[in-house]
Amino acid sequence: MTQDLLAPVLARIDDGLDASVDRLVDVLRIPSISTDPKYDPDVRRAAEWMAGQLTETGFDAAVRDADKHPMVVGHMKGPEGAPHILYYGHYDVQPADPYELWDSDPFEPAIVEAERGKRIVARGAVDDKGQVMTFIEAFRAWMDVHGSLPIGVTVLLEGEEESGSESLEPFMTAHKDELKADACVVCDTGMWSVDQPAITYMLRGIVSIEVKIKGPSRDLHSGMYGGGVINPINLLAKILGDFHDESGRIQIEGFYDDVLAVGDNELTQWEGLGFDEKAFLGEIGLSTPGGEKDYSALERLWARPTLDINGITGGYQEPGGKTVIAAEASAKITCRLVPDQDPEKIIAGLKKFVSDRLPADFTLEIVHASGFPARRVPTDSPYLQSGLAGLKDEYGKDALLIGCGGSIPAVGSIKDLLGIDSLLVGFGLEDDRVHSPNEKFELVCYHRGIRSNAAIMARLAGIKG
Amino acid sequence: MTQDLLAPVLARIDDGLDASVDRLVDVLRIPSISTDPKYDPDVRRAAEWMAGQLTETGFDAAVRDADKHPMVVGHMKGPEGAPHILYYGHYDVQPADPYELWDSDPFEPAIVEAERGKRIVARGAVDDKGQVMTFIEAFRAWMDVHGSLPIGVTVLLEGEEESGSESLEPFMTAHKDELKADACVVCDTGMWSVDQPAITYMLRGIVSIEVKIKGPSRDLHSGMYGGGVINPINLLAKILGDFHDESGRIQIEGFYDDVLAVGDNELTQWEGLGFDEKAFLGEIGLSTPGGEKDYSALERLWARPTLDINGITGGYQEPGGKTVIAAEASAKITCRLVPDQDPEKIIAGLKKFVSDRLPADFTLEIVHASGFPARRVPTDSPYLQSGLAGLKDEYGKDALLIGCGGSIPAVGSIKDLLGIDSLLVGFGLEDDRVHSPNEKFELVCYHRGIRSNAAIMARLAGIKG
Repeated sequence: MTQDLLAPVLARIDDGLDASVDRLVDVLRIPSISTDPKYDPDVRRAAEWMAGQLTETGFDAAVRDADKHPMVVGHMKGPEGAPHILYYGHYDVQPADPYELWDSDPFEPAIVEAERGKRIVARGAVDDKGQVMTFIEAFRAWMDVHGSLPIGVTVLLEGEEESGSESLEPFMTAHKDELKADACVVCDTGMWSVDQPAITYMLRGIVSIEVKIKGPSRDLHSGMYGGGVINPINLLAKILGDFHDESGRIQIEGFYDDVLAVGDNELTQWEGLGFDEKAFLGEIGLSTPGGEKDYSALERLWARPTLDINGITGGYQEPGGKTVIAAEASAKITCRLVPDQDPEKIIAGLKKFVSDRLPADFTLEIVHASGFPARRVPTDSPYLQSGLAGLKDEYGKDALLIGCGGSIPAVGSIKDLLGIDSLLVGFGLEDDRVHSPNEKFELVCYHRGIRSNAAIMARLAGIKG
Repeated sequence: MTQDLLAPVLARIDDGLDASVDRLVDVLRIPSISTDPKYDPDVRRAAEWMAGQLTETGFDAAVRDADKHPMVVGHMKGPEGAPHILYYGHYDVQPADPYELWDSDPFEPAIVEAERGKRIVARGAVDDKGQVMTFIEAFRAWMDVHGSLPIGVTVLLEGEEESGSESLEPFMTAHKDELKADACVVCDTGMWSVDQPAITYMLRGIVSIEVKIKGPSRDLHSGMYGGGVINPINLLAKILGDFHDESGRIQIEGFYDDVLAVGDNELTQWEGLGFDEKAFLGEIGLSTPGGEKDYSALERLWARPTLDINGITGGYQEPGGKTVIAAEASAKITCRLVPDQDPEKIIAGLKKFVSDRLPADFTLEIVHASGFPARRVPTDSPYLQSGLAGLKDEYGKDALLIGCGGSIPAVGSIKDLLGIDSLLVGFGLEDDRVHSPNEKFELVCYHRGIRSNAAIMARLAGIKG
């Protein structure tokens, strides 16, 4: 029955696409970078913009204060007996540096013609403002045509996904009842290819830590002291360089103890996906794979833990040289975790690995440390099945079940605190340059993403309560 | 005879000390940082200031253009048959960062009361403006009293000592005849202690290189790509960490091939100096020595080569975190060299060490590479003997003959291009924080440095031509 309601909604989405693009461009202009305090006012501005969209669409919506950045919450009742679905996304974005590598201003969206038609180039185009707009625009179209939604909906948008989501769990705990739902739709992942939809059922966890080692009480002349003292930068390089052995295996004590091995039939299924590693590397100018030897590319990207240095700083940073031995050196490190690794245990192991390698008169400062575990969602729930069906309605083919190397803290919090599973349906592509200069979102992905969300709503409405 | 002329000059120096300090403070206000192009006008201003001092004192002096920063050259004829001495120093300074660690503005000199009486705190206080002023002020006092100097003098001050001295050799070659002299006095080294004068007869050489390694064509999302690609920062850390083995020995191929072993009697003499390593390290908050095991502190500081990372940069540098795999990473490195290491050979070895460890699809960019060899001066020349005698006149005890971990490119150029040896007499102390925040020069060292230069002039005048 609900299926009959879908056709006019899809027509409305097609007719209104230009306006949908204008609205996305509008919010992409707000530099809502959550990790850098100087953008705090912009983060709030983005929250108010999103709440405004929901209100316009008929939601009872508001910007709600949280510990750090605000949440956007909106509610709309559905028909009696229809499932109530929580939609999650984030309105904050990654920093845009290095700015000089962008072809256009990261916060002045550019509509560019490319091999797949038009694309929108801006920070946050796909991660995650563009994807959030795929369901908000689907709600808008459905409301325009029918004046009500076929399911009950609660929208929760956070502003700290790119900076650790520290406010999310306290907020969920404090508003458990208000956020009650049958399942959650998370729109922050990718497709397998532009015409091959996918649902993500496996996400890696993450540990973020910033370490600073301090040696001499001041910077030293490298001629007067060189050969007489331990250079903190040389020492930090040595320690960081020892994290991996020649085979790419991470040397932190107990790092792999709890790593869950991938099942054989799962491995066989992944091989069936025909992932093209040569093309994956070629797109970023590489030919040599990284990570652990003796593991397939998809295993290394989806099911094996990692340790990457995201930033390193020490000593003289200006042009030219300075013959100095710096008093300290620091590094920002993240580990991607897989089931069933414990973030706290990994953080402890990381600290121990560094401090065990420091001489008595060196000190270790942990500037920051946080993390959350990896997640898997059951693939047999009626909600995930509705997602598969909705995507098939739009793309005419079965969606693939895939893993994801990235991490979405909310998925774990939603399971632990609200007790519901997530349906991870997303419309990003591998070459969208997420977190990189010239991040983009294909217009066709945006358009079909909106249509898919409408189709999935129709399918979800079919679930008997 | 000349000795009789000294007493009134010393009295004049004592009476005029306040004015001598005022003049030093005046030139310390000029941020003549030669390594950073944005200070070029200040570098020239410092040169003009120095030339002005020499002209005031009666020299035929001028600022002379060179390839990069200008030279200051001044001449004054001496009596018939008296030796003609070249005085060398530099008017440029090291960068002052990190600024936040200075107790006062590095370019607004502070006169501070401390355990050894008053001291002048400013960038360049001792390295090398303060030391240059010890001989300029000695000339001034001698001229005030006698109207002429007891020896012929040519002053050569360069503005690139802290940035590679690239203009020095071309300038010396072009003005060989004009700079002709019997010996050179270099005032840019240190004393053994505040009441124990020293003459330096051994200087380490240096190689400076900045390496940048480049991997992926753009910054990558550490979730989507982590475990799939080689992280340039992890790789750079690994390579830099491998430069030294557990014993502190440098692993570059052939690095020690030409290293000249220190003679036994020289070693015995050094042991006689009673160097206090515990105090040396304690002053900078350390207790663990660095460098090669199985070598004494003075050997490691004076007679063993080093490899120090002076600066490292890669990835995210702002506050907070960013889950990125950077496309490139770089490091500024210097090696201190000892006789008879060849800088070109060391640079080639460094490049090979790094490039040998890069995967095929990574590239190595050498942002900068330069160097010059270590030097020793004969200790039996009449000029060095005059230096010893002059210092004994002032301090009432024999000066020590010491080595120096630092490098003064001019000493080599002066020997190679002008064919004369240098007398390295200086008044800096180990705790002067050369190249560090709160660099200082003890007033007593400045005062007795001026008196010593007058006394050395008197002794030099006694050498029969």
